[in-house]
Order: sequence, then C-alpha cells, then structure tokens
Amino acid sequence: MKEKVRYGIVGSGALGSYYGAKLAHAGCDVHFLMRSDLEAVRRDGLAIRSKDGDFQLEHVNAYGSTREMGTCDVVLVALKTTSNAALPGLISPLLGLETAVVTLQNGLGNEELLASHFGARRVMGGLCFVCLNRTGPGVVEHLGHGTLSIGEFKGPPSDRTMRLVSEFHRAGVEAKAVQSLITERWRKLVWNIPFNGLGIAAGANVAQVLNDEHLHANARALMGEVIHAAGKLGYAIRPDFIDVQIERSRPMGGYRSSSQMDFEAGREVEVESIWGEPLRQARAAGAETPRLELLYALLRRATGAGGA
Amino acid sequence: MKEKVRYGIVGSGALGSYYGAKLAHAGCDVHFLMRSDLEAVRRDGLAIRSKDGDFQLEHVNAYGSTREMGTCDVVLVALKTTSNAALPGLISPLLGLETAVVTLQNGLGNEELLASHFGARRVMGGLCFVCLNRTGPGVVEHLGHGTLSIGEFKGPPSDRTMRLVSEFHRAGVEAKAVQSLITERWRKLVWNIPFNGLGIAAGANVAQVLNDEHLHANARALMGEVIHAAGKLGYAIRPDFIDVQIERSRPMGGYRSSSQMDFEAGREVEVESIWGEPLRQARAAGAETPRLELLYALLRRATGAGGA
Repeated sequence: MKEKVRYGIVGSGALGSYYGAKLAHAGCDVHFLMRSDLEAVRRDGLAIRSKDGDFQLEHVNAYGSTREMGTCDVVLVALKTTSNAALPGLISPLLGLETAVVTLQNGLGNEELLASHFGARRVMGGLCFVCLNRTGPGVVEHLGHGTLSIGEFKGPPSDRTMRLVSEFHRAGVEAKAVQSLITERWRKLVWNIPFNGLGIAAGANVAQVLNDEHLHANARALMGEVIHAAGKLGYAIRPDFIDVQIERSRPMGGYRSSSQMDFEAGREVEVESIWGEPLRQARAAGAETPRLELLYALLRRATGAGGA
Repeated sequence: MKEKVRYGIVGSGALGSYYGAKLAHAGCDVHFLMRSDLEAVRRDGLAIRSKDGDFQLEHVNAYGSTREMGTCDVVLVALKTTSNAALPGLISPLLGLETAVVTLQNGLGNEELLASHFGARRVMGGLCFVCLNRTGPGVVEHLGHGTLSIGEFKGPPSDRTMRLVSEFHRAGVEAKAVQSLITERWRKLVWNIPFNGLGIAAGANVAQVLNDEHLHANARALMGEVIHAAGKLGYAIRPDFIDVQIERSRPMGGYRSSSQMDFEAGREVEVESIWGEPLRQARAAGAETPRLELLYALLRRATGAGGA
C-alpha cells in the first residue's frame, strides 16, 4: 500500500457513511459512492451523532457513479447483500493492481462472490458489531460500540490487514485482526440465524425469544445446528458458545435485530446471506440442519422471496 | 345398548349440528347442547344445506345445559379442543352406567382426557373427513363428503362400535370401524401437522405449500417426523404414506385448512391437540422432531398462546 491510502466506500448507508466519515475525519482520503443522499451530502456534508462526540464532515468526496471515483487502494463494501448482483459492475472501475476489496456485509457468500469476480487474493472482510441508524439524508446516529473484526478471506492476517486495523484505530474505531475470517462469520451467525430469524418468523424481540420457553429452546437448538454445520465445514466452534451467546443476549432486553427492523419497516431482508447461503453450505457438507431449513422456507415466504 | 339409542351432542358447532341433525332426521333420539344458537334453533330448528339434499329439522331437542338433558347412551363430543377444560363438567350429567363417550375432536389427547375422568372403557373416538361450514344460527352447509372413521380408544371394534357405524349408515353418513383409532389419529396428523401448520406459519394454502420448493420439502420432512414419532409410539405408518398424502393434496388447489381459516378469522386455533400433544408424546417416546418443535413454538406465538 502507498503512504496515503485512498479509500472507496461502496454502499453509503449508515454503515458505509459511518466508517467512511470516521476515516475521513481522521484525515484519510475517502471517496463515497452515494445514491439517494448524493445531493444532500454534496450540499451539507455528513453528520455523525455519537456519544463519542458529534462531528460534521463539511466537504465530502461524494459521487453518483464509481466510474467518476478513480481507482482506490482499499474498497470498503457496505452495500446491502440484497443488491449483490450489482457489486461486480460497481467495483470494477475502482480496481488498481493492488486494490484490496473489503466486504463489511452480513452473512456468508459475499467474500466468495467478490473472489469469483476479482480473485481471492484481493478479498478481505470485516465483521461489524456496531449499532447505527440513518436518521436523515447524510445523518447517521451511532448508538452502540462494537469492535470491527478484520481478516483476510484466505489465510491469516498479513501486513495489509494490520495496516487497515491500525488506520481504523487511528480514526477512533476499535478494530482487531482475526485469524480466520470465515470462522468469525459463522460465530456471528450463531446469534444472527436464531435471533434475526425468530425476530421475523415469530415477531419476537430478543427478550421475547428468551422469555418464551419454546422459542428459547428453539433458539438454542438453531445455534447448535449452526455450530454443527460450521464444524462439518472445518470451522470449529465450541458447544458452550451457545451459553455464552444466550448470556450476552439477556442484557439486550427488547432489542430488535436489523433484519427484524428491516422486515417490519417493509425494507428488503438479507435472507440469502444470513440463512440461505449458510443452509446451502451446511447441506453441501452433509450437516443436518432441519430447523434452519424450516426457518429459511418461512423467511423466504414472509419476505416475498418465495413468490406468491 | 338399548333398542333406541339416546344421543347427546356436546358442542353444536357445524360438526355436532351436522351429525346430530343427520341422526335425528333418520329418526334417532338426539339431544343437543347449544350455546350461541340455542334461541334460534328452538324457534327455527336446524337447517342443513347439502348436495345430498337440503333438509330442515323443525323440532330440535336443544338445551342450554347438560343438566337438563338427562342421561344418554352415546355422547358425541364435537367441542373445539381449545374448550377441553370444560369437558368433564359438561359430560358428567349425561353419563349412565353404560354411556359411551365418543370424541369427534381433532388431534391427540382428547381420548386420554376423557379416559382420565370417566374411565377408558367408556371412551371411543371418530375421525371426521367432512367439509362443513356454519353459515348462520342453526344453518350448516355441507360442502364435501368424507368417511367418518369410528374406533374404540382401547382395543379393536366391539359390538357397540359396529352398532354406531350402522346407525350412521342408516342416517346416510358414510362410516366405518377402524382397528386402531390412535393409529388413524396419527395418520390424519401426517397431513394436518404440516398443512394446517404451514397454513398459519407461512400464510400458505395447500397449493402454495406444494408449489414452493422449500415449503414443499419442509412439509414432506414434517410428515417424516410425524411418521417417525408414531412409529416410536408403536403406531406403524409406512414411509410411502408421505407420497400418498402429497398426491392426495394436489387436487385440493387453494384449499385452506380449518386451522388456517380459524387463524385468519381471529378464532382460536387448536394448537395443543394438533401440534402440542403430538410433540409431547414424540418427546416422551424419544423421537427427534426438530421441525415440529420449531413449528409448535411459532404457532403458539402466532396464536397468542405463548403470551406477550
């Protein structure tokens, strides 16, 4: 990487805007692909409201197309996975010889998609445990902390991984490098598959799942299925991780997952990356995941992905 | 049994009214416990609209309480299972020394409940494959044929079983005696558990379940779980019964199960007798039924049985 890294942000919803604004605020060279907020951000900049301190980016490099952006050293992909079909076309114009493409998206299959188009060597990923809300055009509210876990798609952390982690640190984002990105993705799914899924299928927030003995038992059993599938695929997760996840959920109270909020607001739900792709990989590995199968079928139907 | 059987009908919704009216129209001595329709039926009688021919019962022995009805030889129980807590109190006043209590209710656990209060010897059951609609007070529409399968709770058909079958025949109701009532109940559940359940949890009618590859696969898998559980409990059902059930469902088209109709109309759903009790029996027998577990939890939640 060069002395000063040139960042491209693809998908400037709450997540892309927040991380991009943090980097830019710390002096990094950041370029944003914008869609609906383009005019507002060009006029008013980006505003971040956070208990860490509010700040405003007056001048934002905002573009309506990646063709205008020029090549970048690091592309941060924060598009919703329901728009993944557009990714290859959006990213191509940003690629130089050494460009790293880092997907911050949810679930499984995103690294594989990028690798199939641009080669596995370029691909990195990040897991975001952060609570953000886009409250208006160019305005993002930062509600909760959480580490950004960054890793290589293939192999352990390298120099570029450590460089990206340290750039985020310098920008005030807690970040760390992970040894096995895909293991971390499966670990995150251990929580997302039951809680995001039952949030939609049962209309139940975290406390409601935990307090209903039957939903609670099914949440645990779904976690067991995810751990079983991950194990079959070579990503070992200890069974007592289930208890850890249940205990970490209790303080969340009436928290609703982003999928449940998307569903209830009539927005698209990331059914394929969170449930569909893990199920397909589980099946391919010969793992039995009957509850996940039923949950996936119900979520497809509930979100209209299954047709009429 | 005596020369002329005295019938008591407990639960005069569409089912109880229809079978009672058929028997009374054929000259049997039938006494109906009525609730909401009592005044209308005392005034106007019972009207049956059917492609077999409409008929009207002008004079109906209708009562507001079983204490006024006197003892009966055969009590036909057609109450919705969601009201089962009231059954023992309702039935007690109808019992003579030899009274048979025949539950025509859905699902599992109804014979056991009656046996626990009145002794297993009294208990019989019937499976109704008939399509009925209560279209107004004292008015029942008979839409589809179907055999009434009658059996003893314990043991093979006896003299009283055959007598009841022949009385129904005489009244123009296709009826037969079954060797193992509880096996037949499990066979019926092989269809009801997936199709009634997905009708509610996925909001999908029969054709929609069959035509969605993921719902279809889960319907088959749920059937497999029910057959597995029945087998563990000693009620053998051949695995190719799944194909038979799928094929028999195809001509049903957009048919909605009674549970789905109840749910969509805001009426109580028989969650415990159709899903809860089979699941508890499956568990007690050590059968693995993961999809049924998840489906039951979702149905409890959807119908409000799980609390807020």
